[in-house]
Amino acid sequence: MNYKMISYILGMVLKIEAVFMTLPCLVAVIYREKSGYAFLVVMLLCLLLGQIMTAKKPSNKIFYTREGFVTVALCWIMMSILGALPFLISGEIKGVIDALFETVSGFTTTGASILSDVESMSRCILFWRSFTHWIGGMGVLVFVLAVLPFGGGNDIHLMRAESPGPSVGKFVPKVRSTAMILYGIYIVITIVEVLFLLAGKMPLFEALCSTFGTAGTGGFGVKNDSFSSYSPYLQYVVTVFMILFGINFNVYFLLLIRKFAQAFKFEEIKYYLGIILVAVLIVTLDIHKLFPDWESSFRHASFQVASIITTTGFSTVDFDLWPQMSKTILVMLMFVGACAGSTGGGIKVSRFVILLKTVKKELNTLIHSRNIKKIQINGRSVEHEVVRSVNVFLIAYVMVFSFSVLLISVDEFNLTSNFTAVAATLNNIGPGLEMVGPSQNFGMFSGFSKLVLIFDMLAGRLELFPLLILFKPATWRKN
Amino acid sequence: MNYKMISYILGMVLKIEAVFMTLPCLVAVIYREKSGYAFLVVMLLCLLLGQIMTAKKPSNKIFYTREGFVTVALCWIMMSILGALPFLISGEIKGVIDALFETVSGFTTTGASILSDVESMSRCILFWRSFTHWIGGMGVLVFVLAVLPFGGGNDIHLMRAESPGPSVGKFVPKVRSTAMILYGIYIVITIVEVLFLLAGKMPLFEALCSTFGTAGTGGFGVKNDSFSSYSPYLQYVVTVFMILFGINFNVYFLLLIRKFAQAFKFEEIKYYLGIILVAVLIVTLDIHKLFPDWESSFRHASFQVASIITTTGFSTVDFDLWPQMSKTILVMLMFVGACAGSTGGGIKVSRFVILLKTVKKELNTLIHSRNIKKIQINGRSVEHEVVRSVNVFLIAYVMVFSFSVLLISVDEFNLTSNFTAVAATLNNIGPGLEMVGPSQNFGMFSGFSKLVLIFDMLAGRLELFPLLILFKPATWRKN
Repeated sequence: MNYKMISYILGMVLKIEAVFMTLPCLVAVIYREKSGYAFLVVMLLCLLLGQIMTAKKPSNKIFYTREGFVTVALCWIMMSILGALPFLISGEIKGVIDALFETVSGFTTTGASILSDVESMSRCILFWRSFTHWIGGMGVLVFVLAVLPFGGGNDIHLMRAESPGPSVGKFVPKVRSTAMILYGIYIVITIVEVLFLLAGKMPLFEALCSTFGTAGTGGFGVKNDSFSSYSPYLQYVVTVFMILFGINFNVYFLLLIRKFAQAFKFEEIKYYLGIILVAVLIVTLDIHKLFPDWESSFRHASFQVASIITTTGFSTVDFDLWPQMSKTILVMLMFVGACAGSTGGGIKVSRFVILLKTVKKELNTLIHSRNIKKIQINGRSVEHEVVRSVNVFLIAYVMVFSFSVLLISVDEFNLTSNFTAVAATLNNIGPGLEMVGPSQNFGMFSGFSKLVLIFDMLAGRLELFPLLILFKPATWRKN
Repeated sequence: MNYKMISYILGMVLKIEAVFMTLPCLVAVIYREKSGYAFLVVMLLCLLLGQIMTAKKPSNKIFYTREGFVTVALCWIMMSILGALPFLISGEIKGVIDALFETVSGFTTTGASILSDVESMSRCILFWRSFTHWIGGMGVLVFVLAVLPFGGGNDIHLMRAESPGPSVGKFVPKVRSTAMILYGIYIVITIVEVLFLLAGKMPLFEALCSTFGTAGTGGFGVKNDSFSSYSPYLQYVVTVFMILFGINFNVYFLLLIRKFAQAFKFEEIKYYLGIILVAVLIVTLDIHKLFPDWESSFRHASFQVASIITTTGFSTVDFDLWPQMSKTILVMLMFVGACAGSTGGGIKVSRFVILLKTVKKELNTLIHSRNIKKIQINGRSVEHEVVRSVNVFLIAYVMVFSFSVLLISVDEFNLTSNFTAVAATLNNIGPGLEMVGPSQNFGMFSGFSKLVLIFDMLAGRLELFPLLILFKPATWRKN
């Protein structure tokens, strides 16, 4: 294991985190909040540590999959620990585990909170909380890759470990250029959403925080009732942008370089939009009796479906009070998740498409027992290796999921609460049902359960293996 | 598709069913119950239909996987429909769907009931109800294969489609001999259990019915409180036999031919017994506060763990009232299920062993990226084909499972009830939690939901693909 190189990269991430913290500092200055000092202190700490760790450039740059996975996992853990310090230093969140929970929930774009009253928090803290969504959405290492030159051709291992989805595509031969394009698209859509929200008379601060939550498909809001009290226009705008941020960024790149035919052939997007459409239709019909007119039932149905499938977690109403059919659909969407290569979490639509086609192929094999073709996606054969990795992902996912439900059952909450709490964290959504429903929070879990859910949030965001690998002794042995 | 051959086999199954019905007739004669007429009528009907269908021996005996799967599926559906008739004709169960539910639950060894008061039923009806477990446990087609000569070497397709587990082994080169050995072992252990129960002063009728329920890992009882009021001795006897019937019958065969070394090397059994041991320990500790002494908490814990992992479904207490940790463990065991090649249901221990090793192998690949060996079980490499089929099974399982939960959500019961209702039927267990807990029954579901659950019971018993294949139009097309 190339420890020097790992430590060097971690140092760079710390420096980047320091840079990111200038923003909440600025917010504190504008609103004259003394909590801002907390960010200043942590910023300096990050810079100091970062400087020490990057003082000597490692001569050996060789870097394998193993190093990539370990680096990404350690990077996210370290980033979360330092990101949690401002909450603690400012005293706005008491308790180390709670502060860590909130920060991990932010970076992993989960949006599950231990806070019951966000409106009492200072602005700079709320800003940082939402901004962690934006950082975590596209990924901090992707950012590092975009702004700092690595060289050596090993950077793809980092990108692969941090980016979601069964296969990570490079748009262009160079990883650095790909990372820059990704962030470019990300920033542009972010700005467009802010403008749309401002046009709906949302105050700038709220527009920024809401956009960070949408862009990273996070879900932290600045109001206790999430999106309930905003105007229908604002609710529709956020619905549309949630869906846009859940789309595979490959499609935007293809549109950008005017490969329209290829962009519209993207099967994952068809399934993604198809699932949204069907779910919205059923939920609209199912919840119609709860609302005065069709417009509002359609609005709430589409907001909630978009919020859950993209794993954002905003809410306009308490869907825990909806009929069982709608709730079951939302729980199913929690697992489906958004598209690969988007900022969304969950198992990802493309994995489901592959899994569905695997079952279809199996049935065909049983019927015909010969003449079986490889699975095709976007008109091209899917490599055996990809199918295998999707299968393994599903298995590992089911295992982590069930084991987590078992562990948090020590808290004596009921099965639905435990099940959806794990679903909401492992899929990086935020709210679940019953004890963790949209009008509740995660504060009542014991410290032990919170640690389990922190693990789940990280495991979900990094797609399991970077986290699991840390627990294999072989990882730490010399080759 | 070789329709003539399929119809011929179905005809033979009907004749066998007629023979099986002589037993409840006998019970009716002994207890002088007039419900016995119902069995006489259906027996004659089965014989008549069977005679017509087997009148002409088909000249073309060619039989592929497709025919095997379709035959098994149709056979189980037909057997269930005719098996339900005595309930209806005797008037002891009103409603076609309810009678079908109860019969499918019997044959598939699920043990989920729509009856709230079994003690008011006549003896011959109760006998038939429990006897369906015994028939379904080892499989009716395996029985047909054992008693009737087929020839043509195509019979393995039938056995493969009906027998549970990722790979069906023939003990001996001839399928017929294998089937005879299986039923031989089955009958011997059945008799031994009856003797043990009689030794504990259980009346013969109850001993027979309880043994049928244990042997088939079914769960129908003849008392409203299942096993609560039986003596600790009887509860322990049933615990041990449930575990014995959940063991891969290959092991008994190996012991029979004195290949002890091979029998004790059987990895699946080690995992199976290991899981039981750990689960019993945790549950005993967890429920200790509910019982007066350690003996009774150990007894109830081991009875319930054995009952659930073997997918039997008997109960000595209402485990829905247990602490959340114990309930969560039981729910997890519902999915694990018994060993492949046993009479138990669920996903099967061997599948989990393969899945676990797949994840381990993936982690090793990420760490070393070369020098990766095939997965090994019992010291031998597992073929790629087996691993693939286990993966596909898991995917199809998850899909059928979630879709079923969605469909039965129309009844507006809560998620825990719906989730465990599907878990209890798809894994052929019987009781779930809350609305379908051990002290409840499945009577309150709508006809639609009952049909969904009937499908799940059949799909679970036949391991999905024989049922799924019926819905593919390609199955019914000419080659």
